[in-house]
Amino acid sequence: MNPEDLQGRIVHFPASQPLQMDAGPIIAPLTIAYQTYGELNNARSNAILLCHALTGDQHAANVHPTTGKPGWWQTMVGPGKPIDTDRYFVICSNVVGGCMGTTGPMSINPATGKSYGLDLPVVTIRDMVRAQAMLIDYLGIDQLFCVAGGSMGGMQVLQWVASYPERVFAAMPIATAARHSSQNIAFGEVGRQSVMADPDWRGGRYLDFGVRPQKGLAVARMAAHITYLSEDVLQHKFGRKYQDREKPTFSFDADFQIESYLRHQGSTFVERFDANSYLYMTRAMDYFDLAADYGGVLANAFRGAKTRFCVTSFTSDWLFPTVNSRAVVHALNASGASVSFVEIETDRGHDAFLLNVPELFATSRGFLEAAARARGIAVRTAA
Amino acid sequence: MNPEDLQGRIVHFPASQPLQMDAGPIIAPLTIAYQTYGELNNARSNAILLCHALTGDQHAANVHPTTGKPGWWQTMVGPGKPIDTDRYFVICSNVVGGCMGTTGPMSINPATGKSYGLDLPVVTIRDMVRAQAMLIDYLGIDQLFCVAGGSMGGMQVLQWVASYPERVFAAMPIATAARHSSQNIAFGEVGRQSVMADPDWRGGRYLDFGVRPQKGLAVARMAAHITYLSEDVLQHKFGRKYQDREKPTFSFDADFQIESYLRHQGSTFVERFDANSYLYMTRAMDYFDLAADYGGVLANAFRGAKTRFCVTSFTSDWLFPTVNSRAVVHALNASGASVSFVEIETDRGHDAFLLNVPELFATSRGFLEAAARARGIAVRTAA
Repeated sequence: MNPEDLQGRIVHFPASQPLQMDAGPIIAPLTIAYQTYGELNNARSNAILLCHALTGDQHAANVHPTTGKPGWWQTMVGPGKPIDTDRYFVICSNVVGGCMGTTGPMSINPATGKSYGLDLPVVTIRDMVRAQAMLIDYLGIDQLFCVAGGSMGGMQVLQWVASYPERVFAAMPIATAARHSSQNIAFGEVGRQSVMADPDWRGGRYLDFGVRPQKGLAVARMAAHITYLSEDVLQHKFGRKYQDREKPTFSFDADFQIESYLRHQGSTFVERFDANSYLYMTRAMDYFDLAADYGGVLANAFRGAKTRFCVTSFTSDWLFPTVNSRAVVHALNASGASVSFVEIETDRGHDAFLLNVPELFATSRGFLEAAARARGIAVRTAA
Repeated sequence: MNPEDLQGRIVHFPASQPLQMDAGPIIAPLTIAYQTYGELNNARSNAILLCHALTGDQHAANVHPTTGKPGWWQTMVGPGKPIDTDRYFVICSNVVGGCMGTTGPMSINPATGKSYGLDLPVVTIRDMVRAQAMLIDYLGIDQLFCVAGGSMGGMQVLQWVASYPERVFAAMPIATAARHSSQNIAFGEVGRQSVMADPDWRGGRYLDFGVRPQKGLAVARMAAHITYLSEDVLQHKFGRKYQDREKPTFSFDADFQIESYLRHQGSTFVERFDANSYLYMTRAMDYFDLAADYGGVLANAFRGAKTRFCVTSFTSDWLFPTVNSRAVVHALNASGASVSFVEIETDRGHDAFLLNVPELFATSRGFLEAAARARGIAVRTAA
């Protein structure tokens, strides 16, 4: 991987190719930042699109240029890994509304010459997918071999099949739902109110003032982070252990290890993520309700699709509990789709989709291998 | 109830009767604000102490003087109710560290002539109970017929038996735990960081500046409020329903009913509660670990106590799930105590202890009646 790749690839669509938004307005011009791994085969049949989650970005399988840490799905994606870059051409783009190069609230609004801030139309999951389809067109790919992602990424996977059924051969939605629950909207709202309560947010125009609502965003991240883990894993990992001592200090310092851990999550997050993007991403999830676009019948979203599905959930995920995945599976069954469903036993909570969970790797590898055989994707010989 | 009662009763302990705090320092002078309902019998054997939860106060069974709403346990306490004020003398005091008249961070620090702010020592559950014991002494009551409370109130119930086993005839800990879990400490820390992130908090000295960290406190309340309800009840009550319309506005307004509801919870809370008190209350819960004071063996906290227990939990309470109550029951069994345990099937989450839950009323009434017979408390004849 050369340094140029670390900055990411960029495509600037001309103003004549706008992105139509569900909210009404268009974005023009549209920029999409993306990464690719592996090589597209001659039949252009081996492309896998990865859809990132709330705070992810295009850096799925390379060292992250800002944090210096592994990409968010480097456990899953790479040479010889379940999403095998020796075999597949893997694409991951920063979603619309993001903050890593794709058009988002930090981007310049051509109408004002300043950053969009909240003037960017509210982004939906369908808008994200529509922009990804423009990228896939640009890359000259008719049909994706697979679309895969967890959490908000899984919502995009479901939307891909609903919007472009003929363009998705296989789909891997993980730890996700066809609609955001009331409780999840509630957590989203807490995060947004925390950002907006920070006086440095300045109605979303903080970039004009050279400040950033870091305290509010850090608290939002702390609250959200709790929902990504299970109670069991918190108890096992941190329990009631104190920092560097045996006894309480009777203070409001980070006396417990869990407090120190959460503060660290908050403070490192604000170094890499834009507060307004956080508002847009949470809002996109809140508005996601795939069935609502199909007369309230989720099965109708998938009617006629020949896509083969592998749906995965985790027993300890209370943000997107298995009941959500079951609802997707029932709808897929009702629509006559080909679907396999795996609920993986783990104490690692929602974040399990990002972690070293061998059952997830085995499930994904097996599903992709079977799909590759069905699609006629040859195993590449070593160069 | 006359207007004087609405202001609450007050006892000022002289500086010669200080409150010794677990953190080391003393509070002197100590003030306790409390309410009573019903009449103490001649044998002084019919007193029930109610312990309030995180944001409760002494106004358990009268119209709240600030909000104009019913007291926090008016469902449970009153003439003919399970905690029958025709039969029992009911006492409820604002805990130390609170903001409704008992010494807390808003109170004047005699050393400075200004409000304590964070100069008040960190308060523990045991400190709260120690202060309540001073009040019970002051009221001339040797043994309480019962100590009852939910959530943080339940922690005080458990601490009462551990600290003063001979002074508690019966105990009703509801929806509580013998220690705060790692996840609950995490939620506590989010709330504190939200308050402290508000620039109007001013290091806890906001009263000196005539401001209050209302935005930070409101966000803290919103986050906490989610944990008081169950996912099911949120889904049933609010689901994904929009405010006053059928379609999304594609904005960051409170588009969903759940958002409007949460914002309302936040904005009304800050009208009645002090931000520093919120820090002290959450911290007291975090530090609560009853077994830790007894060599790590919870049963030892209850060894020798003749108190009879009724432990109650709720199936949908994920803040203090039943496993916490079971741990208390196991310890009580191991210590040879008399204990009955009821897990109530309800979708109303942690807040069920404050709500109209007939099974809770029936359980409490039955337990108290049996205990009253054992204690020899006569049924009062109507005046």
